[in-house]
Amino acid sequence: MTDLTVQCDIGFVGAGVMGKNLILNLADHGYRVAAFDLDHKKLESVIQQDQAENNGKAGRVVACSSYTELLAKLSSPHLIILSVPAGRPVDDVCSKLIDAGIKADDIIVDTGNSLWTDTVRREKDYEGKFIFFSTAVSGGEVGARFGPSLMPSGDPYAWTRIEPVWRAIAAKVDPATSRPIERFEPGNPVTEGEPCATYIGPGGSGHYVKMVHNGIEYADMQLICEAYQVMRDALGMTALQVAAVFKEWNQGILNSYLMEISAEVLATKDSETGLPLVDVILDKAGQKGTGLWTAVSSLELGCPSPTIAEAVFARSISTLKEQRVAASTLLAGPVQEKPTEAKREQMIKQLHDALYCAKICVYAQGFDLMKTAGIEHGWALNFAEIAKIWRAGCIIRAVFLQSITDAYERNDDLANLLVDPFFSKQISVYQMNWRRAVADATLLGVPVAALSSALSYYDSYRTAVLPANLLQGQRDYFGAHTFERTDKSKGKTFHVDWSSAARTMVKVK
Amino acid sequence: MTDLTVQCDIGFVGAGVMGKNLILNLADHGYRVAAFDLDHKKLESVIQQDQAENNGKAGRVVACSSYTELLAKLSSPHLIILSVPAGRPVDDVCSKLIDAGIKADDIIVDTGNSLWTDTVRREKDYEGKFIFFSTAVSGGEVGARFGPSLMPSGDPYAWTRIEPVWRAIAAKVDPATSRPIERFEPGNPVTEGEPCATYIGPGGSGHYVKMVHNGIEYADMQLICEAYQVMRDALGMTALQVAAVFKEWNQGILNSYLMEISAEVLATKDSETGLPLVDVILDKAGQKGTGLWTAVSSLELGCPSPTIAEAVFARSISTLKEQRVAASTLLAGPVQEKPTEAKREQMIKQLHDALYCAKICVYAQGFDLMKTAGIEHGWALNFAEIAKIWRAGCIIRAVFLQSITDAYERNDDLANLLVDPFFSKQISVYQMNWRRAVADATLLGVPVAALSSALSYYDSYRTAVLPANLLQGQRDYFGAHTFERTDKSKGKTFHVDWSSAARTMVKVK
Repeated sequence: MTDLTVQCDIGFVGAGVMGKNLILNLADHGYRVAAFDLDHKKLESVIQQDQAENNGKAGRVVACSSYTELLAKLSSPHLIILSVPAGRPVDDVCSKLIDAGIKADDIIVDTGNSLWTDTVRREKDYEGKFIFFSTAVSGGEVGARFGPSLMPSGDPYAWTRIEPVWRAIAAKVDPATSRPIERFEPGNPVTEGEPCATYIGPGGSGHYVKMVHNGIEYADMQLICEAYQVMRDALGMTALQVAAVFKEWNQGILNSYLMEISAEVLATKDSETGLPLVDVILDKAGQKGTGLWTAVSSLELGCPSPTIAEAVFARSISTLKEQRVAASTLLAGPVQEKPTEAKREQMIKQLHDALYCAKICVYAQGFDLMKTAGIEHGWALNFAEIAKIWRAGCIIRAVFLQSITDAYERNDDLANLLVDPFFSKQISVYQMNWRRAVADATLLGVPVAALSSALSYYDSYRTAVLPANLLQGQRDYFGAHTFERTDKSKGKTFHVDWSSAARTMVKVK
Repeated sequence: MTDLTVQCDIGFVGAGVMGKNLILNLADHGYRVAAFDLDHKKLESVIQQDQAENNGKAGRVVACSSYTELLAKLSSPHLIILSVPAGRPVDDVCSKLIDAGIKADDIIVDTGNSLWTDTVRREKDYEGKFIFFSTAVSGGEVGARFGPSLMPSGDPYAWTRIEPVWRAIAAKVDPATSRPIERFEPGNPVTEGEPCATYIGPGGSGHYVKMVHNGIEYADMQLICEAYQVMRDALGMTALQVAAVFKEWNQGILNSYLMEISAEVLATKDSETGLPLVDVILDKAGQKGTGLWTAVSSLELGCPSPTIAEAVFARSISTLKEQRVAASTLLAGPVQEKPTEAKREQMIKQLHDALYCAKICVYAQGFDLMKTAGIEHGWALNFAEIAKIWRAGCIIRAVFLQSITDAYERNDDLANLLVDPFFSKQISVYQMNWRRAVADATLLGVPVAALSSALSYYDSYRTAVLPANLLQGQRDYFGAHTFERTDKSKGKTFHVDWSSAARTMVKVK
């Protein structure tokens, strides 16, 4: 039985997987939560788990049966957190809360995977009715339960009220090692260390930054998958053998949560067949849109994130399972010679270095995208801080992020991560193996879309004169699109009269 | 002096580069055109050129000074063609024509580079006021003047009225050779051959198909540019030497308008400095959005067009000129050994084959995208016909398109162009050189984003089991996103309790 006479600190709408874990995390940190969900069973499940974790005592979480009751349980001004599916449900809940009597100085915090432009729109739509604030949450269910990475943005006054809550429940980093402080014990939360929650900026900037986080995550995952495929298909390695390689890689510069869990997944046996689990998982990748949004934003801003886009496309090619199975018998591959043992060892080492270099390029693309979006939308983003809060709690967490923080602390106006002295040095050391890894896979017929796209990005970025001079010539030839000249000042454009025998040049402006 | 007593057949709004040429093309084919433009100078220029080309006699084109006058000059029901910038201007002109008294059975045909969703919206917006019809036009100014490729879509009744006009002015193909019949003589238009104008379907389908045409064009251009860059930067060839190679390639399977003009551009001397023109053109590529829209649509439909996206990104990387120049001295490339003469010959041959294979993949991506969009929007697209009208008039025109028509005539429900017997055979013959071209460029440090992306697409499409099984395992691990099993029926999903020591599997649905 819950004690209905106690006022709660925080209202919470949505007790799905993420909501439930956030509620329990809040409770662990001493917040009393009034919770509501349209599905009463979900609500009961939260209450039960809370009691179980709280030595059978009730009271940390209070179930409400209506929005009105939710508001009545809260001290004023109200602070209400939403964890409902992105899109329409967010607006539905907001209008229900308006009907229930929410006030202008109350705060609603959306923690869903919302599209950042929706957040911007909502801030305007709800102005004067309540303060719409947003916080992007990364870390999956475990992160939500024991410490997520939090990317809040919006009204600065609202931030002052939410800040202590978010800093309390966020993942924590040990400042001495830059590694997450991990403790997965209900009732015994991590309270020391640097919290992974920092104010990102106005408007939808938090959700934008989280979107880019996910785009990076897509590419990170795809790179690991490509290394796995080369080992599996070109080197004939078993899942357990690849798991052992990944486990070893996770001890060094490739250390990351995604590398760690990849090794775990590959080492897992299917409880039903006894086979390696991955060998019975269907190779059709799902997606929820955030990687796609990142790629679209990069196209629209004219800021190149080709490797993130390749990762999204790799998922869509994977869904064409029936077509691929049919094509596998129709389309020729190269005649493959089985690599020798020595070559095998060498190719594994090459893949390691390739993964590292490509990963640097993916982060370079993601951070450049945030920079470009920040300029476009007037957000003063702090990239050192953003890299910091990704060191723990979120899916792409890795010590690697500390190197990015260091790079932006050295120079907060870095043109691109690639030209930071540390990263440029790293790539110069590892690049030849990266090139060999891509060349070998290419000759052996194993697709490495992300590894090779990252390499083309690197080589394009370091090319003083790209072949776009020919491209501009083509465009002027068929469409009179004009071009600039290397020997004239910027902005002056020229056109050639291609139909004339003399091909005379005309200055256009 | 124009004769104001004669009624005109067609009204025309917009006398810019494209509009002017379309008007003169219409006049060549015997249509009397009443023309209007806000800029009276542009209008005068059309009238003057028309008279000059018509032996000094006036009357084929009539200049109007207002929308009211334009309508008054036309026989009823009115047929009015727009050639104004995409976006707002189209709606501005439409509402001006409504004010001027356009009727429900009058037809307005938009020929601009409109976003196809705008076309769909406009059809609805203007229902009952007039019939909004659209026709995407490809071929640049020369195409507009002497025969474009036309992609009309919308109301079928309107099509019956426009069809004879479009078939008259469209580019023509010699059915015996599948090559364009080209004659660039005012007053002596091509009237024989197969016209490059076919009804595409309802709604914005014509503009969608044109958008994909442009996406393919972006990739086609980028592929040629990459071959150029490898020859220039890795093989040390001059612009004239590359021009000679392209000229030779244009005689064989790589024959295309874009190959032809690339050779022309490379062979052109700058009239000011005497240097090869390309060597003074600034390598910053412009873009007008259609390639970007294609890539975005492919992301949103989950239908992979990675090579088109890479081409768009290559343009955006090219715009970072200052950053690239700075990075070129900071970022390491491979230690390059100058290829021997024998290796040089071999690499040129490899690039030829690579270009051909990658081009097939780009068209496979584009046609798959149209197919997917057609299913999504309920358009019954005829791919054999679409390939046919791209054989002449448009920028990607090439005999190659006839092979695509043949493929879809063999099987109009082809899963992907790659599995057509002709194309799969072609790639099997040329693929090893494609792989070697990508591997060599990769090791030599020349970016080949599109060539390698196309190869990854090919290798992914022919892979029965992609590494997305690991990816699904990762997603289930951190986000409980579930997966399907290879040994259970489709649609059944499973989740592993990763936190348990036993890692037990749970059936989700």
